[in-house]
Amino acid sequence: MGLAARMSGAGSTTGRLIGLGLGPGDPELITLKAARLLGRLGVIAHIRAAGAGRGMALSIAGGLIAPGAVLVEIEMPMRDDRSPGAAAYDAGAAAIAAHLAEGRDVGLLCEGDPLTFGSFMYLAARLQGRFPVEVVPGITSMAGAAARIGLPLAARTDCLAMIPATLPAPELAARIAAADGMAFLKVGRHLPKLRRVLEEAGLLARAWYVERATWPGERILKLADLPDEVAPYFSLILVHRRGEATA
Amino acid sequence: MGLAARMSGAGSTTGRLIGLGLGPGDPELITLKAARLLGRLGVIAHIRAAGAGRGMALSIAGGLIAPGAVLVEIEMPMRDDRSPGAAAYDAGAAAIAAHLAEGRDVGLLCEGDPLTFGSFMYLAARLQGRFPVEVVPGITSMAGAAARIGLPLAARTDCLAMIPATLPAPELAARIAAADGMAFLKVGRHLPKLRRVLEEAGLLARAWYVERATWPGERILKLADLPDEVAPYFSLILVHRRGEATA
Repeated sequence: MGLAARMSGAGSTTGRLIGLGLGPGDPELITLKAARLLGRLGVIAHIRAAGAGRGMALSIAGGLIAPGAVLVEIEMPMRDDRSPGAAAYDAGAAAIAAHLAEGRDVGLLCEGDPLTFGSFMYLAARLQGRFPVEVVPGITSMAGAAARIGLPLAARTDCLAMIPATLPAPELAARIAAADGMAFLKVGRHLPKLRRVLEEAGLLARAWYVERATWPGERILKLADLPDEVAPYFSLILVHRRGEATA
Repeated sequence: MGLAARMSGAGSTTGRLIGLGLGPGDPELITLKAARLLGRLGVIAHIRAAGAGRGMALSIAGGLIAPGAVLVEIEMPMRDDRSPGAAAYDAGAAAIAAHLAEGRDVGLLCEGDPLTFGSFMYLAARLQGRFPVEVVPGITSMAGAAARIGLPLAARTDCLAMIPATLPAPELAARIAAADGMAFLKVGRHLPKLRRVLEEAGLLARAWYVERATWPGERILKLADLPDEVAPYFSLILVHRRGEATA
């Protein structure tokens, strides 16, 4: 699919879907561009995990949204390692499309970066072609967590990989072997498996555990010191093969 | 090295070194936090490639720096695949340390994210322990380029890797085999080698070439359509194994 096909869409009377990257959690890590759009857009969509209260995205961006903006809430039956419900995305896309078809731009709130393990792409896939789609990139949880630790992730000829902890142990081991800096996402109930694979790779002592990076309730410790057997959804593990990228 | 050791340092009478992630190029992709600090810090350090004019970092951040701020310029003999001069970093660290020792905070301008292939870490390594060091994360060129194309980089169980094109061909091939989404950095004169390796992996038709993502002079095309034999410093190549991450 070509650039023009991706970045434009239907006629100028329709609204645009804009994926707004919000960064890892601290509202000050929102970009000037996303902040400007949040203050101007009349329709804001957000995805909320069922049973998770107000939702993380709205907590990050709430203070910047224009008073009187219409909120479109997409409730998602979220699990850390299962395909989120296609039906929920279909319904969310339809609710957004109703605004776009009437010429109203819609900002979709996205934790982190919209195109890096983001739910944005499931909605964009359902709407692109019919409507123009744009993306404002955001800071990943990996970069947010590394900044809080002060851990250099990659330098020179290092390879830096983001790896879902949901992969089977042999695949995790293969991907670890091909990387120097690593961030493990979607840790959840895969924590014991990941700990074992990192130990077998001789990397356990170098691994950092980060929960809720840059938000209230942030928790940072060496993975070797973590007593938990299950990690919450908003956690990740950072490792550099040599302890840290070096000059 | 523990968190406390990393994130704090000497007594409260010394200044802090603050690595300011500026994102990929568009000044609107600076975070609210970096913008606030740029407007308040009295000393701003930046690294300028020798012969590269004003320097990219200063071009991005220039409009946000407080009037009257002292600029510390670190001139760097920059090559895309050689170790930048340790002597230049030593001199830069000494110039920054002079301000820190007198209690003045110093903001160091960093393109992209300071801890992801950033020059920041070479200066931080020379100053941490003696002075407090902090990091404001930034948007990577990878996320900036993906946003401009509208290319989903990773979803579900995908592995997303940032890979320096400077690696030998067999190592490139091994790292490509372990990834689903990929960003190749430091392309420069390694373009023909990378093109060959991607072709052998069956990925050439899926590769995007992006030069100066999000800035004036931006250039985006399929790698297969790129006539050039050498890429400039600020370019990268994005690939997803299936064309794009899919829902």
